[in-house]
Amino acid sequence: MNSSLKFVVFGAGNVAFHFIQALISKNFNIVQIVGRSENNTKYLAEKFHLAYTTNKVNVRKDADVYLYCTSDNSLNELISLKIATDAIHIHTAGSVEMDVFKNLKSRYGVIYPLQTLSKTKNIDFETKVPLFIEASDADTLKIVQFISESIAQQVSVANSEKRLSLHISAVFANNFVNQLYQIAFEILAGQQIDFINLKPLIQETADKIKFMLPKDAQTGPAKRMDTVIMSKHLDYLSKSIELQSLYRQISEMIYHTQSNSK
Amino acid sequence: MNSSLKFVVFGAGNVAFHFIQALISKNFNIVQIVGRSENNTKYLAEKFHLAYTTNKVNVRKDADVYLYCTSDNSLNELISLKIATDAIHIHTAGSVEMDVFKNLKSRYGVIYPLQTLSKTKNIDFETKVPLFIEASDADTLKIVQFISESIAQQVSVANSEKRLSLHISAVFANNFVNQLYQIAFEILAGQQIDFINLKPLIQETADKIKFMLPKDAQTGPAKRMDTVIMSKHLDYLSKSIELQSLYRQISEMIYHTQSNSK
Repeated sequence: MNSSLKFVVFGAGNVAFHFIQALISKNFNIVQIVGRSENNTKYLAEKFHLAYTTNKVNVRKDADVYLYCTSDNSLNELISLKIATDAIHIHTAGSVEMDVFKNLKSRYGVIYPLQTLSKTKNIDFETKVPLFIEASDADTLKIVQFISESIAQQVSVANSEKRLSLHISAVFANNFVNQLYQIAFEILAGQQIDFINLKPLIQETADKIKFMLPKDAQTGPAKRMDTVIMSKHLDYLSKSIELQSLYRQISEMIYHTQSNSK
Repeated sequence: MNSSLKFVVFGAGNVAFHFIQALISKNFNIVQIVGRSENNTKYLAEKFHLAYTTNKVNVRKDADVYLYCTSDNSLNELISLKIATDAIHIHTAGSVEMDVFKNLKSRYGVIYPLQTLSKTKNIDFETKVPLFIEASDADTLKIVQFISESIAQQVSVANSEKRLSLHISAVFANNFVNQLYQIAFEILAGQQIDFINLKPLIQETADKIKFMLPKDAQTGPAKRMDTVIMSKHLDYLSKSIELQSLYRQISEMIYHTQSNSK
């Protein structure tokens, strides 16, 4: 069945890259990639031996599934083009309601990958990318589910509100966490200390919550409201009021969480 | 040589637990544990078949090494007791200067474990706990180094200022990261979504920076200053001005980091 479904994929970024790779590995038939940037789109098309266009006029009208792996601005623009209104249209965004397609397409859905995807970092899509799906109707859901379960082991149905909360939690647990890594990197760089020294700690921090609730895994000065240590740290950060403010704010949240869980 | 060094360990918390376990596994001779809480100290002593006391009057005076795995308040108090002023005194704190011992002890040093340690979570001390050490003089450093290299593979000399910066970076990369996990946990709990769904993302976030700089690993709405998505997220968080403020602050930092690295 896989090869009988013809796909057009919109987008040539990180999300498009990993969806295309996953779909191809399961023998889905991608008939065209549609991108904005000639460089990125051509790169993807050549890497996976696919046809491509950067001109909306040339988007194929005969596909069965249109998969949108684009920024949300582009998504709105592309949907309004009224291409193939009877095909199945699927977006992949965490924070865009499924009803963005309503009245513009007859059958539609969402496949949201709860993962951080970079072209330059391989990931086992099948086992490491949980997918959250929904669809306009039961029949379309079956197809969205078939596609999703073909490429990933962990597939759950979630409505747009649940998906939004998943995306926001991912922003905290990934984007913001990664920025804290960056801050730590910069603090160490200021003392000519290699970031590599922190990697065992970063791994252990992520490992701990496989077995413990985050609040039970907590250690450090904020947990015990050790104001002497915290003052030393705030002094050290005195060159950056942003970092001082962030330090205070998260420390208070830690203390609050720990006090409430006693 | 290990068994000829007699240790007294101060403290009965997470750090004491893991140091005692590591020292015993390498046949060091711990002659006494000194704790404040009868319960915790007795528990540790029985677990490792060691003598203990909770009464400072009974601290053994004949040990070669006194290892302080205590809160910083207790550390100051214990040092001022003037026990065994000619033995080697070693504290394990990230943010306490080595000179806390000066004029009170003749030989002293620091062994700082750059790791999050919980009694309830096993860790391979030898391979997963980088140690940062310093000492009052070259001869003492040799002994501090011998002890450290006996129990851990990654041992580096670092002065008190470098150690402070390591501790602060650890607060960001561990304590604060862990609090972000907690926030994500609570956001999902509000929608009856199991935190387990986020675990592949959390693992991948930590894995990515094994191979990429944190700033290169970044994805998500703040990186591209996607104000439409960010407004939706801020609306969703409207019940908590603390979370809204944190969201804004870290998003701005991400955007700033990304703009500067282009």
